[in-house]
Amino acid sequence: MSDVDQFAEHISRQREKWLEELNEWLRIPSVSTDPERRGEMVAAAEWLEEKLVAAGCQETAVWPTDGHPIVFGSYRSADSAPTILAYGHYDVQPEDPVEGWESPPFEPTVRDGRLFARGAVDDKGQLYVHVKALETWLATCGSCPVNIIYLIEGEEEVGSPNVGKVVRENIDKLACDAVVISDTSMFAPGLPSLCYGLRGMAYCQIDARGPKGDLHSGSFGGAVVNPAEALARLLASCRDTETGAISIPGFYNDVVPLTPKELRDWGELPFDESAYRDDLGVAALSFEGDYGVLERLWARPTFEVNGLLSGFTGEGSKTVLPATAMAKVSMRLVPDQNPDEIMDALEAHLEELAPAGIDIEVTRMLGARAWLAPRDHPVLLAAGRALERGFSAEPVYIREGGGIPLVGLLDELLGVPAVLMGLGLPDENAHAPNENLSLENFYGGIASAVYFHEELAKL
Amino acid sequence: MSDVDQFAEHISRQREKWLEELNEWLRIPSVSTDPERRGEMVAAAEWLEEKLVAAGCQETAVWPTDGHPIVFGSYRSADSAPTILAYGHYDVQPEDPVEGWESPPFEPTVRDGRLFARGAVDDKGQLYVHVKALETWLATCGSCPVNIIYLIEGEEEVGSPNVGKVVRENIDKLACDAVVISDTSMFAPGLPSLCYGLRGMAYCQIDARGPKGDLHSGSFGGAVVNPAEALARLLASCRDTETGAISIPGFYNDVVPLTPKELRDWGELPFDESAYRDDLGVAALSFEGDYGVLERLWARPTFEVNGLLSGFTGEGSKTVLPATAMAKVSMRLVPDQNPDEIMDALEAHLEELAPAGIDIEVTRMLGARAWLAPRDHPVLLAAGRALERGFSAEPVYIREGGGIPLVGLLDELLGVPAVLMGLGLPDENAHAPNENLSLENFYGGIASAVYFHEELAKL
Repeated sequence: MSDVDQFAEHISRQREKWLEELNEWLRIPSVSTDPERRGEMVAAAEWLEEKLVAAGCQETAVWPTDGHPIVFGSYRSADSAPTILAYGHYDVQPEDPVEGWESPPFEPTVRDGRLFARGAVDDKGQLYVHVKALETWLATCGSCPVNIIYLIEGEEEVGSPNVGKVVRENIDKLACDAVVISDTSMFAPGLPSLCYGLRGMAYCQIDARGPKGDLHSGSFGGAVVNPAEALARLLASCRDTETGAISIPGFYNDVVPLTPKELRDWGELPFDESAYRDDLGVAALSFEGDYGVLERLWARPTFEVNGLLSGFTGEGSKTVLPATAMAKVSMRLVPDQNPDEIMDALEAHLEELAPAGIDIEVTRMLGARAWLAPRDHPVLLAAGRALERGFSAEPVYIREGGGIPLVGLLDELLGVPAVLMGLGLPDENAHAPNENLSLENFYGGIASAVYFHEELAKL
Repeated sequence: MSDVDQFAEHISRQREKWLEELNEWLRIPSVSTDPERRGEMVAAAEWLEEKLVAAGCQETAVWPTDGHPIVFGSYRSADSAPTILAYGHYDVQPEDPVEGWESPPFEPTVRDGRLFARGAVDDKGQLYVHVKALETWLATCGSCPVNIIYLIEGEEEVGSPNVGKVVRENIDKLACDAVVISDTSMFAPGLPSLCYGLRGMAYCQIDARGPKGDLHSGSFGGAVVNPAEALARLLASCRDTETGAISIPGFYNDVVPLTPKELRDWGELPFDESAYRDDLGVAALSFEGDYGVLERLWARPTFEVNGLLSGFTGEGSKTVLPATAMAKVSMRLVPDQNPDEIMDALEAHLEELAPAGIDIEVTRMLGARAWLAPRDHPVLLAAGRALERGFSAEPVYIREGGGIPLVGLLDELLGVPAVLMGLGLPDENAHAPNENLSLENFYGGIASAVYFHEELAKL
């Protein structure tokens, strides 16, 4: 117990300093999807490398890729010690719509114990926990009982297109006994959560093209098929409004049903549908047959319109019959759906229904399979004990609706268990304005990571 | 015939000078829908007032309104002479998408006998014809056989919200025997056309609102009704794809069918559907039951999506479940549809179909009834003879798919016939990039306006 106190005391003494460090990093707008922010991406990567050195890594590097660089770090304790690989990402989502933020997205601001900034929870703040855990071990005990590899990429928010190649090329350097990732959420405040399943994704842009140029809607309306209306109809055709199910032929072919045990366990989670609805500010939720909300979020695939653009969208009116219309569409996938096959099914469906006079082009942008871990693996159970110590509460086992593309790849390439130790909260606003991280979870996460190292070393 | 030569010779000598003047005007970006261009609107109005003085008006004024100013001019010949009111508009459509222009929208450029600029045909170039017609009379004969009132507004492209009040307040100053407007198109090059019917319009913005903020499409997809998908479905629900007809209940209640004579006459117009399709660059046109293209364009109402905006629309991907989605929608109307009743019908339809979890708001923006003139009125026949002299070709009688909101109002308030002497061409690109005016039609239009004065004076 003396160790525990020592760790907690150290963390407690460093709170302000570590918050200041994190704020410095959050001020760098490392938006990976924005080609004009390549410089900021490099700055954010170099900032992290410095901090890995300061934390105690004996070896660090910023690996170039065809896209944004990857930050590597290695702390070696002993060859006999278990090795964990901490994965995370320093890139963040775009900040738009900027007008939705209460404080500027790249000026970190604390309100009511929450740190508000783009990247606070997704994922700079969460991954920084694992850097500070190593620092805590070295500051308090002079060494850490596990070897730690850091693999922090800059393209998670754009589907991790380049990290796979780098992982394959450096597979020897990345050999480990477990992967640990903090990039998910707790089920509820004060309820530490281990995530054992993630949905996959297929993301595309759909362009509908009609006449060769924009037309006057008075002079040509009635003769020309409107691409915006055609696109709207195609999008609407992807769901059966009676059942709420996705009506793309073949879409559900490979979906694996939930086990009765999972259904039972999820039924015991403290989920208040009415409060959830109120938090979202909606009068009703969506539906799909008889599936419950958690099943729909964690174990059922989705069809989602992420963006729409066509014609005149400014103030006032313009009587244009637009030449083109564009939609961004993503489908969240569950075991055993294959993203390529799902995209094939969508494309076939759209081609089948596209009206004469409209050309449809589908540009595939992201694809990742869903991931599911064995819930009773010793490493997951060790992580559960660490969380219980860090947060003084028994953890729950959950899935997540979102995805982390690299999790599936690391599973495939390294064949070791992954621990998803989520520190976000349900109202963390990842990918939206007012993204935030609970400071209590930040510090509790650092303690849990320290205890996880200890628990792993005991196995 | 000596007069004719005199007019034609004068016009011929002034070609370069008048083109230079028009170019100067076209360089002023008088976009009425853009609040940042109020200064340019005033500059464009004052420019025109100067030219009315120079042309020979004894009285001119720039009348303020609650929106953009109206330019008034009056040339008095004799109390016994007939009086015409020339109406037009100096405001223009927004220039976007700017990247679609071959030469900049506000740098007038002549290519292949066409003048390319925003406002070239709609409507600065066309209305300027009537200014130069007065100047031609005074320069050649020292007087004009008709009194001319100019009423040139700055809000036609935003639905003429303020001109009605001004017309009512100045009804004594505007008393006339006929209205003349050049703001429509010739049916084909070399085929002078008199337009005796315009469609009306009901224009609105539809906002679909779901959750109170943008959400992560992974974390919330499957639980929340997507506003972009809901809006797409609502838009799609407004048409029956089997018949091509608009499926808003009550939409066609007041539509007056075409007369057999009009159908016959339209059948004789030189319309080549295949060439029309090729010009538009589409493999197929839209359809509505058995109606032909000209009927659909001129005598059938439409439902058109003019704009769509929701969520993420930039480069790349963003996995957002958007909080809102917006569409701009317009419906072209025919006799005897009432724009308010049509908007009521649309709103009722949307409210009926909106899914639980989505709020729909409809903001009405423009409303105008369709207009239809008696084709055999002596003033229209006089205009026909003038066009035949100006273009050395027999004119055709057509309708237009677009609308000119003031035409209906002047009809109601002044109770005099309106002559729509269109000088545009089918590929004029009004409201789109590369808007243009045929210079041959510009000069031929000035001659026709001069002859129209002569023909009117003879009645």
